[in-house]
Amino acid sequence: MGDTTGTIGSAPVAGFAFTIEATHGRARTGRVDTPHGPIHTPQFMPVGTLGTIKGLTTREVKARGAEMILANAYHLYLRPGDAMVRDLGGLHDFMRWDGPILTDSGGFQVFSLEGLRTVKEEGVHFRSHLDGSKHFLRPEDVIAIERNLGADVIMQFDHVVPGQAEHTLAREAMERSLRWLDRCRTAYDAIEPPHGHPQALFPIVQGGIHADLRRASCEGIIARGPWAGIAIGGLSVGEAKPDMYAMLETCDDALPRDVPRYLMGVGFPEDLLEGVARGVDLFDCVAPTRMGRNGTVFTPDGKVHVKRGDFRLDRRPLVEGCGCPACTDYDRAYLRHLHVSEELLGLRLLSLHNVSFLLDLMRDARAALRDGSFDAWRHDWLARYHSKSNRG
Amino acid sequence: MGDTTGTIGSAPVAGFAFTIEATHGRARTGRVDTPHGPIHTPQFMPVGTLGTIKGLTTREVKARGAEMILANAYHLYLRPGDAMVRDLGGLHDFMRWDGPILTDSGGFQVFSLEGLRTVKEEGVHFRSHLDGSKHFLRPEDVIAIERNLGADVIMQFDHVVPGQAEHTLAREAMERSLRWLDRCRTAYDAIEPPHGHPQALFPIVQGGIHADLRRASCEGIIARGPWAGIAIGGLSVGEAKPDMYAMLETCDDALPRDVPRYLMGVGFPEDLLEGVARGVDLFDCVAPTRMGRNGTVFTPDGKVHVKRGDFRLDRRPLVEGCGCPACTDYDRAYLRHLHVSEELLGLRLLSLHNVSFLLDLMRDARAALRDGSFDAWRHDWLARYHSKSNRG
Repeated sequence: MGDTTGTIGSAPVAGFAFTIEATHGRARTGRVDTPHGPIHTPQFMPVGTLGTIKGLTTREVKARGAEMILANAYHLYLRPGDAMVRDLGGLHDFMRWDGPILTDSGGFQVFSLEGLRTVKEEGVHFRSHLDGSKHFLRPEDVIAIERNLGADVIMQFDHVVPGQAEHTLAREAMERSLRWLDRCRTAYDAIEPPHGHPQALFPIVQGGIHADLRRASCEGIIARGPWAGIAIGGLSVGEAKPDMYAMLETCDDALPRDVPRYLMGVGFPEDLLEGVARGVDLFDCVAPTRMGRNGTVFTPDGKVHVKRGDFRLDRRPLVEGCGCPACTDYDRAYLRHLHVSEELLGLRLLSLHNVSFLLDLMRDARAALRDGSFDAWRHDWLARYHSKSNRG
Repeated sequence: MGDTTGTIGSAPVAGFAFTIEATHGRARTGRVDTPHGPIHTPQFMPVGTLGTIKGLTTREVKARGAEMILANAYHLYLRPGDAMVRDLGGLHDFMRWDGPILTDSGGFQVFSLEGLRTVKEEGVHFRSHLDGSKHFLRPEDVIAIERNLGADVIMQFDHVVPGQAEHTLAREAMERSLRWLDRCRTAYDAIEPPHGHPQALFPIVQGGIHADLRRASCEGIIARGPWAGIAIGGLSVGEAKPDMYAMLETCDDALPRDVPRYLMGVGFPEDLLEGVARGVDLFDCVAPTRMGRNGTVFTPDGKVHVKRGDFRLDRRPLVEGCGCPACTDYDRAYLRHLHVSEELLGLRLLSLHNVSFLLDLMRDARAALRDGSFDAWRHDWLARYHSKSNRG
């Protein structure tokens, strides 16, 4: 605890810095400075795939404590088009978010397009999930797109494989991701940021659930550094949770401690806490909004479906003490009614609750890290969360 | 202008009063007091059919100036059930709205259930639009439901017929509505309001587009009075606009001037202004939220579809000077993108804009009535609205 380190040593991107304020085992709390302001870590980043966090305004996620949000280069390239977003002033202006933004590169989306895409060394041929139109994206194209979009942090184009991928396939994808990182870096260096602020390119660690590949990926990335931040990708894609946690420890051992780590696509409360305990600083996931639309909410006692029968006449808030509008303004009976009646307001309120829940969880983790109680706090939190889980 | 009249003369419902502050021809502006606070007239009431204004929180419609909202007895009877709403503290507590509420009786919903209902003198047999289950509702049942729900204003159960209904059918429905009014009144007198505040029963003028029937309906209602307010129903149900306007003049001539008049289900800007000009004080309609979900927005220059091509790169607000979050926080290009991408946030923002637009329109009408400029203002407003209408 309390061992304060400075910003990363060499060649940080202008406007970016990482300050660790306290550590606790592998875990740490600190601050990432970006051209659009600081992010306090560990932090959860709500996802606005198409430039909108589904159902929510940027104003209300900000009011709930969000500091950085995500958007997706693949989706915005298809609709409304990255050139249009550029002409509209970039993502910050477009979606009305004046804090930091991160764009994912589309590597994961391409991975999800099974049957609609072919990965070659040069790039990826795929058909749009919208209209079946044919597209070809090279790492260089993706960086051009992300330059147009203008996020503070832009992700390299990577090759993602399923969580259970064999060593050979995982190795091929990991090594290709490193080669694509070089091409991304070259394009990144060649294209000026068009929106008047620097953008940091984050590399992505790949390697499936194979420790030697994860280590090799980390080493390859470090050799190409320094970086303002490093992402860990290809997890939470079908592998077992113990495998994911083991890979996080491998990466924590292999990566420099003075660079922020971003675990991609991970957003269940238990995974956030296990990730923080393994040295992760940033998380994102569509789970809170997607689950909210489906009627499932996070509570300190586990996930609960709002349709459960004992909510019918329950006038208590969804989660006692939660500061989100669903909990401060409405009760369980009404939220249940909204969901049963398939009312729009329900989608919105439950999504905001779930996003809020993860933001609060990371706020509490930061406090526990600062006061040295993180391990005990996490243990208690997870015990309560798991003890009643699935009762709903 | 300025001829101030007092509250209605005899036997007003406790907690209710109507004060006219200024008149201009048939039009007037004033205040309706209710047990949950005052409504400034003319006023538009957003509709929360199932106890929720689709996609919007009560907090945000209040912030936009809404003073009274609607809910629907038929829908709430089916889901979640009026007894449940009663047990949850009534509609005010249930939907978190501490201002006045009005419940429609279900007469119009039954009318809409063509093929699923049979109207008899005793009541209406119908099948639920949700699950086909059989129901039978008598006027007495509807009042019991509305007592359970606990709105400030509860509507009589009435018999609605299509706008083009022949004299014979329109007469039969009008006369039945008067007989049902008697039965509603008897039930209303027999059932104590369960939520600690008085509720005012509003009768509904029927008679289709037949002036003699409308006059007879008004006379029948007056003979059964006094009332804290009188509704005009069975309009905006397929008849031509000139017919609707003529019927409003007939009713204005036949009804007492010192009782607030509520024109049911009317909510296009031009109809609101024509209604105000013909002595109407209160309006409601699902149009603003329904149109918002479909991508159509009200502007001073007519209705516009947000998908129009020239919005693609248009960074101006939807309506310059509009104070709603869609206009103050976002631009046309982004709202278009949300609609094209079928994003939830678009439904919500456009719905709020449309509701806001009608609330602002009535606010401006009140101001014009107070300062004596109503006719000129209305003429100019309608000229601009119609001159560019349908250009989108």
